[in-house]
Amino acid sequence: MAKKRSIQEQTSDPAAQAMLIRAEELGIGTAFSRADNMVPCNIGGAGMCCKLCGMGPCRLTKDGQTGVCGATIDTIQARNLIRAIAAGSAAHSDHGRDMAFTLKAVANGETEGYMIRDVAKLRMVAAKYSIPIEKRSPEEIANDLADLYISQFGQQRGTIAPIIRAPEKRQKLWEELGVIPRGVDREVVEALHRTHIGDDQEPEHILHHAIRTALADGWGGSMIATDVSDILFGTPAPILGQANLGVLKEDMVNVVVHGHEPTLSEMIVAASQDPEIIEYARAAGAKGVSLSGICCTANEILMRQGIPAAGNFLHQELAILTGSVEAMVVDVQCVMQALVGLAQNFHTQIITTSPKVRIKGAVHIEFDEHKALTVAKQILRKAIDNYKNRGATHIPNIREDLVPGFSHEYINYMLGGTYRASFRPLNDAIISGRIRGVAAIVGAYTLGGRSVPAVHAQAQQSPPHCSIPKSYGAAKIGFMGVVGFEDARGTVRLLELSPSGCRLAFVIERQ
Amino acid sequence: MAKKRSIQEQTSDPAAQAMLIRAEELGIGTAFSRADNMVPCNIGGAGMCCKLCGMGPCRLTKDGQTGVCGATIDTIQARNLIRAIAAGSAAHSDHGRDMAFTLKAVANGETEGYMIRDVAKLRMVAAKYSIPIEKRSPEEIANDLADLYISQFGQQRGTIAPIIRAPEKRQKLWEELGVIPRGVDREVVEALHRTHIGDDQEPEHILHHAIRTALADGWGGSMIATDVSDILFGTPAPILGQANLGVLKEDMVNVVVHGHEPTLSEMIVAASQDPEIIEYARAAGAKGVSLSGICCTANEILMRQGIPAAGNFLHQELAILTGSVEAMVVDVQCVMQALVGLAQNFHTQIITTSPKVRIKGAVHIEFDEHKALTVAKQILRKAIDNYKNRGATHIPNIREDLVPGFSHEYINYMLGGTYRASFRPLNDAIISGRIRGVAAIVGAYTLGGRSVPAVHAQAQQSPPHCSIPKSYGAAKIGFMGVVGFEDARGTVRLLELSPSGCRLAFVIERQ
Repeated sequence: MAKKRSIQEQTSDPAAQAMLIRAEELGIGTAFSRADNMVPCNIGGAGMCCKLCGMGPCRLTKDGQTGVCGATIDTIQARNLIRAIAAGSAAHSDHGRDMAFTLKAVANGETEGYMIRDVAKLRMVAAKYSIPIEKRSPEEIANDLADLYISQFGQQRGTIAPIIRAPEKRQKLWEELGVIPRGVDREVVEALHRTHIGDDQEPEHILHHAIRTALADGWGGSMIATDVSDILFGTPAPILGQANLGVLKEDMVNVVVHGHEPTLSEMIVAASQDPEIIEYARAAGAKGVSLSGICCTANEILMRQGIPAAGNFLHQELAILTGSVEAMVVDVQCVMQALVGLAQNFHTQIITTSPKVRIKGAVHIEFDEHKALTVAKQILRKAIDNYKNRGATHIPNIREDLVPGFSHEYINYMLGGTYRASFRPLNDAIISGRIRGVAAIVGAYTLGGRSVPAVHAQAQQSPPHCSIPKSYGAAKIGFMGVVGFEDARGTVRLLELSPSGCRLAFVIERQ
Repeated sequence: MAKKRSIQEQTSDPAAQAMLIRAEELGIGTAFSRADNMVPCNIGGAGMCCKLCGMGPCRLTKDGQTGVCGATIDTIQARNLIRAIAAGSAAHSDHGRDMAFTLKAVANGETEGYMIRDVAKLRMVAAKYSIPIEKRSPEEIANDLADLYISQFGQQRGTIAPIIRAPEKRQKLWEELGVIPRGVDREVVEALHRTHIGDDQEPEHILHHAIRTALADGWGGSMIATDVSDILFGTPAPILGQANLGVLKEDMVNVVVHGHEPTLSEMIVAASQDPEIIEYARAAGAKGVSLSGICCTANEILMRQGIPAAGNFLHQELAILTGSVEAMVVDVQCVMQALVGLAQNFHTQIITTSPKVRIKGAVHIEFDEHKALTVAKQILRKAIDNYKNRGATHIPNIREDLVPGFSHEYINYMLGGTYRASFRPLNDAIISGRIRGVAAIVGAYTLGGRSVPAVHAQAQQSPPHCSIPKSYGAAKIGFMGVVGFEDARGTVRLLELSPSGCRLAFVIERQ
């Protein structure tokens, strides 16, 4: 058994600490305690086991040892890595696929509740692909863009369209290396084929295709997802928000959305403001419906609508432990199977909504973009009906203000204004040395490594001349946007980090 | 360390036994000895470990234990299973994709050495999809069929076209269950997405999609591969062949083709009969070039061209151990990485040919359908040049005659003749009870389980009334086609099994 850590060792977040104490009082396990009880396999963790065929699983623990087929440790580790990359690309891109289908349906008036909110972004994106935009309705343009985007997933040859938006120098490099994806799905499938027993067995060659598979997501599926989200729900701009478990309300029906997709959660935001739903909540004895988010779904509605984030991936169980959540509505990815068993100790209902995801014991209310608002209201009514079953609550009074929403479009506008939108002031400042650099901090909150989350560690270990302020306080927990922050050395920074901890963050230092 | 087995325990094939004795004499390891030295991980082998996210790898060894995320053993095993199915579908179907591209190139006159050999099958298949065939050239029909087939991989919605060739009752069942694939790649990618951390967590729901993913291969990629192979290289009909290591020749240049694809190997067959190549071999002191196959590539050229099979998956190293192989030409799948190191003890050159596959230390001569015959000749010349480096040989004098090639098209013809091709005589005989049944034996020769190969075990354990003859002799090693065999009880059987052991086999008993 691994070492039991103190709660202070498990997390530095006081809200999480409070809930872990509560869990101990109730004798309820969480991911934190399960992590303490689970010794990770050190062979598998280092990618030194191969279970790709039926002759193993082979564990390569001795120097120079090979698998039964003769596969070396380098081959096996490269295969394990590319399979992880393929799964990540598949998951992220599959979300982009659904967004493209939603855009198509919206363009054809087949959905309920959606509209094209950011026509400027739609026109800008469409123009990049030479889709005619003059004298055309947003719906006509969106229909063409949706067709183009849907085709990127199944495309068999050539190069994916969004690659043209990369800097030219970078495109040239990718072309020379032969790593420009032909189609999103094809690269993922080929990654699986190449790692079948007795296929690609030169580590560099395997990793070469891993790059192509990753680009298929980054410049394919994920980019499509971002574009469509911005077009349908608005491109993010700075907005005041709050984060941490203290955003849960004592006197309102708490509905927590969790997962990775904005399509349903955006409709739940809309439905929660519907007078009919507010009245329904009041009739149930609550002051209304309070929405909050967990993980990437939180990020989607926080940066666009200012809906508070209850926490990151590791807060999903802790939110339920407050006893104040009537419904946790989940879509895809990062939803712990433990939620259902945990919720049985309280009144919380776990509601799965994706056709792709079921969890034993959860309520399933399937989301359908064609009747999105209806489904959203159905879910909210279910949550409100559950309010009467709420018992004692223990919501930690801990929350922080933050400012998310620094999309690259906004920064472009911020630096140059409406008529001269430009990154030039930033570029000039970097060239002249006035700004020392721009750093991206990317990572996810998990219990892997069982220590300080990677994001924290990265932030704390930055070199002195671009370190994140020691006292970045408000940003520490939600790890989200602080603007114009001053530290002891008088530097000013623009800092944005996502609540789920897995999105791009950046730090700009002005001296 | 696992138990060292005797050579008789390792294999019942006398040819393989002879080569394993030779390997021991030379102090050279093989998959058999590596298997004896490798203790398979019993946790991973039972699908009880999960390394899908960075919080583990979690090993569930105690009753009721869950992963750090709360995933149960049922969820974890279902995920591991569907990932294996996705990889298998990806690999098999990716082969079908390349075949469809080859058909397209042949139809457009862009290849070298290929032709449409089975126009009747082309017309039959095209007609199934309502592609016009009357008054059209084979190339015109093939072009349309290739377009249809290529589109099956990237298709995003609807149902894959070849599904219409399943029995109607079966199609209806699949439709009711919602398991008809939308597109080949999409199902594979969704399988990866669903098994991302915190996604699909109801085992039945995961396995439901596993069925759809498997059908995407069986009725998509694999069926396309078979159709195109038949169209380009001829639909198999019974042909006399030979199997086992004794097919290697003392006085000829031995070229062994190994892997899974027929495109290059068919060209090597053609090139090996070219007078120019035969003369080149004679000038090198050999009587000519002798081709043989290993694994599924063997099957492709055995059942169509009667080219002998040197053995199955487990014979690949043993062929090299004979010291008589000038070149082993590999394409994709089931090629042991150990081959290169093993070949260094002899003169054998391992030649990789697929753009998807590299092996450190192998010679890479990339196959290109547009200059297939040229590449094939280049490879043969390289093998012939290597003949002078051959040392002492130890070819076991063991080989068996066999008759492969019982395609369903042939059986249909065989039972009804040219004008009344029909399965009716067979159906009638089964209905009347004269034939007791038709059995499929499917399995692969591997060292998994470390015991009698599954195919042997299945055959030996069939119920008495449809048992395979105890003395099935000729079929035992190559495990391939015996026609009209009589056993002690006077039954007559039609038996076909593939040399790689992983294809459909069937047994028909007439009493």
